[in-house]
Amino acid sequence: MPKLRVHNLSVSLDGYAAGPEQGRTNPLGVGGERLHEWAFQTRTYRQMFGMEGGDTGIDDRFAAEGDVGIGATIMGRNMFGPIRERWESEDWTGWWGDEPPYHHPVFVLIHHLRNAVAMRGGTTFHFVTDGIEAALARAVEAADGKDVRLGGGVATIQQYLRAGLIDELHLAIVPVLLGSGERLVDHLEGGVVGYECVEFEGSPAAVHDRLARSSA
Amino acid sequence: MPKLRVHNLSVSLDGYAAGPEQGRTNPLGVGGERLHEWAFQTRTYRQMFGMEGGDTGIDDRFAAEGDVGIGATIMGRNMFGPIRERWESEDWTGWWGDEPPYHHPVFVLIHHLRNAVAMRGGTTFHFVTDGIEAALARAVEAADGKDVRLGGGVATIQQYLRAGLIDELHLAIVPVLLGSGERLVDHLEGGVVGYECVEFEGSPAAVHDRLARSSA
Repeated sequence: MPKLRVHNLSVSLDGYAAGPEQGRTNPLGVGGERLHEWAFQTRTYRQMFGMEGGDTGIDDRFAAEGDVGIGATIMGRNMFGPIRERWESEDWTGWWGDEPPYHHPVFVLIHHLRNAVAMRGGTTFHFVTDGIEAALARAVEAADGKDVRLGGGVATIQQYLRAGLIDELHLAIVPVLLGSGERLVDHLEGGVVGYECVEFEGSPAAVHDRLARSSA
Repeated sequence: MPKLRVHNLSVSLDGYAAGPEQGRTNPLGVGGERLHEWAFQTRTYRQMFGMEGGDTGIDDRFAAEGDVGIGATIMGRNMFGPIRERWESEDWTGWWGDEPPYHHPVFVLIHHLRNAVAMRGGTTFHFVTDGIEAALARAVEAADGKDVRLGGGVATIQQYLRAGLIDELHLAIVPVLLGSGERLVDHLEGGVVGYECVEFEGSPAAVHDRLARSSA
């Protein structure tokens, strides 16, 4: 069975996966970019954005695993666009320019149906209005035997966690205190139940935790 | 100025510093002992309880720092006794037997005044009924120029955090999911504000974060 996997989800020491006041000028919330500094130092992320160099240690190994064996991506509207502004009726095609770093079908959960948009480099954005299970079914079909990656935002990950649909979850805990924003462990009706930590390894920039469904 | 320091505060990956249903049979809450496994593997903790051996790596270094330069301890009633049961009127003298591992004055925040109790090995339990600032003032005086250590439980640490009285906070994040219990970052009216992470170092058993007041 193909898996639904979350990778490189950065969380502050105080539990926030995004800063407050997300919007067009602060896609990750105020201070939220500090959560991702570890990732942007890796060779994997630098290559993704056309840059040379970068670290090749533990952080890079985890960053790179997020693309291995993935055939489609699902994301919420908050990751695709600035949630507090009206963009669904506009020509908004995400934060990533003409050639987004996906190179496969991406299913975006939104409220108003839009036509699919094919971008340069193999990414096609499909818009899904009938919920998280429908999006997963379509993504699994599009992935054609490969796994599906679940992006953000935090609310979308919480929805899939509540529904018990996530198979693997990689968190990167970073030495940052945000003080406010969107907490990962929230709105879960009982926490991250049914998972166990199967990998736990740190660099000076981040501690990587890989959670998987408990076998019990 | 003497500092108020928290050490070896273990927190699960999902943010809990104690399990649910704390009481006499589960002093740390259900599953809460899993938070402290890293500590009980260290030489420092094993010595504290009269055992030989133990790890001497990173975990032990952090465990041992908790005793350096400390002249008095403050703890809440939840750390001293089973909070959900009546013990204040009994002869309860803590969880630690006749010779508690403090060896200095300990100030316990409770609701009903009791006489101080001198234990074997230099620990004296003093009971404070007039609040956290009074307890701190008495502990600072008793510490006689040394620092004061703040123990638990979680609610007591939150009270001191809200009041801005903690100078240093050492967290040990462990690869455990508790799913419920007492969250450290809760009831804080805006998070752990005014602190920054000044040390971040991991072992396979725990990631140690040392937070200190921001110099800004």
